[in-house]
Amino acid sequence: MPELTTRLTRRLDLRCPVVSAPMAFAAGGALAAAVTRAGGLGLIGGGYGDADWLAQQFTLAQGERVGVGFITWSLARTPSLLTAVLRHRPAAVMLSFGDPRPFAEEVRAAGAALICQCQSLAHVRDAIAAKADVIVAQGTEAGGHGALRATFTLVPEVADELAAHAPETLLLAAGGVADGRSLAAALMLGADGVLVGTRLWASHEALVKEGHQRALLATDGDGTLRTRIPDIVRQLPWPEGFTARIRRNAFTAKWHGREAALAEAAAVEGPRYRQAAEAGDAEQTAVWFGEAAGLIHAIEPAAQIIERMVSQARERLDSAARLR
Amino acid sequence: MPELTTRLTRRLDLRCPVVSAPMAFAAGGALAAAVTRAGGLGLIGGGYGDADWLAQQFTLAQGERVGVGFITWSLARTPSLLTAVLRHRPAAVMLSFGDPRPFAEEVRAAGAALICQCQSLAHVRDAIAAKADVIVAQGTEAGGHGALRATFTLVPEVADELAAHAPETLLLAAGGVADGRSLAAALMLGADGVLVGTRLWASHEALVKEGHQRALLATDGDGTLRTRIPDIVRQLPWPEGFTARIRRNAFTAKWHGREAALAEAAAVEGPRYRQAAEAGDAEQTAVWFGEAAGLIHAIEPAAQIIERMVSQARERLDSAARLR
Repeated sequence: MPELTTRLTRRLDLRCPVVSAPMAFAAGGALAAAVTRAGGLGLIGGGYGDADWLAQQFTLAQGERVGVGFITWSLARTPSLLTAVLRHRPAAVMLSFGDPRPFAEEVRAAGAALICQCQSLAHVRDAIAAKADVIVAQGTEAGGHGALRATFTLVPEVADELAAHAPETLLLAAGGVADGRSLAAALMLGADGVLVGTRLWASHEALVKEGHQRALLATDGDGTLRTRIPDIVRQLPWPEGFTARIRRNAFTAKWHGREAALAEAAAVEGPRYRQAAEAGDAEQTAVWFGEAAGLIHAIEPAAQIIERMVSQARERLDSAARLR
Repeated sequence: MPELTTRLTRRLDLRCPVVSAPMAFAAGGALAAAVTRAGGLGLIGGGYGDADWLAQQFTLAQGERVGVGFITWSLARTPSLLTAVLRHRPAAVMLSFGDPRPFAEEVRAAGAALICQCQSLAHVRDAIAAKADVIVAQGTEAGGHGALRATFTLVPEVADELAAHAPETLLLAAGGVADGRSLAAALMLGADGVLVGTRLWASHEALVKEGHQRALLATDGDGTLRTRIPDIVRQLPWPEGFTARIRRNAFTAKWHGREAALAEAAAVEGPRYRQAAEAGDAEQTAVWFGEAAGLIHAIEPAAQIIERMVSQARERLDSAARLR
């Protein structure tokens, strides 16, 4: 793999500036370990918090240096989960979607890097207060949960905020990073590296049903939307302001814009939704990927995805100096 | 100014790969001429079509080589406007928000470059059919009218579409381009140049009320939203799918989410809205800028904005090769 070093690779001792997103249910120990072996940093998706599943995933990571990510508002309901997970000695803990401050001290005391994912300048101010080691600026193009600010303006604005108030804090760009072009662009915008979700959701190691991965290959970047319906049907109390980017399909055509009706029907629709998800049906349930779908044309091993991303970025960055 | 040449500068004979957005009401002849004198290509905003105003703006451009942009669905209601404007021999005609095909032949026959602005892959397919010389991939972070796809994924996906189906067609990135970082990033994503709106809205030459420019300086990138309310209050028949990104203020707090009530009140609210706009009030009317607001800290001459953008991009691109 060609060299591509940034402040991130030096500080976290990586061979490339790529961190994998801790996608709930999809990012298990095998994916995290593969990303770390490829030179990046793999994160296990702590999701809504299942201690047994997490212990199993750390076992599957086979001693590779990996981290873990949590949905912060969910972690706040069972904070003992953090204590349990820190016994696995994760290299990093990423907190998304909620105030990171109540957990920051425990993460730091365990020797893990604290990564805070932010969707707005307001979140960045909280993450600086939590003394985050790494801030992820996540744009709306991301698959799964997120908010409205877009990667292209959020990243440089956060870079300016950090330069002024926390110059040692590292910055990752997230949301739409799928190839070497986006990695190179993220570095130009002022990021020290990238957090990759959808592109690795479409990998061999991701815990994603084959039918859902096939649906991604058949979808271009116009084929997703942000909506609250998967959280309504699952009766998950996501805080105001966060929505899920999922594939446009029969489920979204039926319920997006009819949120109140779905909430009323959740007792019937919830089990039906879960059953379709379990069966790998790509129409009657949420299919969790972002706008980067339009840049993905094959399901591949994570190592191959990361190697190509870094090679292509290297090539773009080298060609940049020749634009004269 | 440092050199920065791309396919765009070579084909359109520019000194830098920067085109100014034809912002309705804000982009007059003085701004377009200043952008062209700075080495880019300035576009006058044709807006909803006022032949006398347009003739005046071409006069104010003082013979500089400038182009013009139209809101396509509006132009379709008075197509004679295009014929009238082509008499001023614009260097380029940009068509946004509607099917460009009915106008393509007349633009080309007049010797103007045809620029088509696209917000989705579906639009790109229409623009290729119209044999556009330049396609603008506009992300949701843009100020004013636009749609939902974000710059960071839309640009590389359109680049792939053009590479496969129209390799000679040039590509501009729009939406959130405000400084040299975004220009460098756009080139890494596969664009041949950029279309700049909000950053030039905040210039001396833009036809923008001082109170509105002051409001931009006080707003960060979290402080805008996409909404239909300015079109509802003005009773403008914008097609489904397009919304306006404007500043969050008292007007949006009162009416966003209450679209039906605003439509009913338009006879009263319309005149009130126009009066506030005329007075430069930044609370009781729409204030038209995008997420790039968070990257803008001064109202400056257009030439200075463009020179700094190009210098900073040059510096970033040169440093890219040193990331080893």
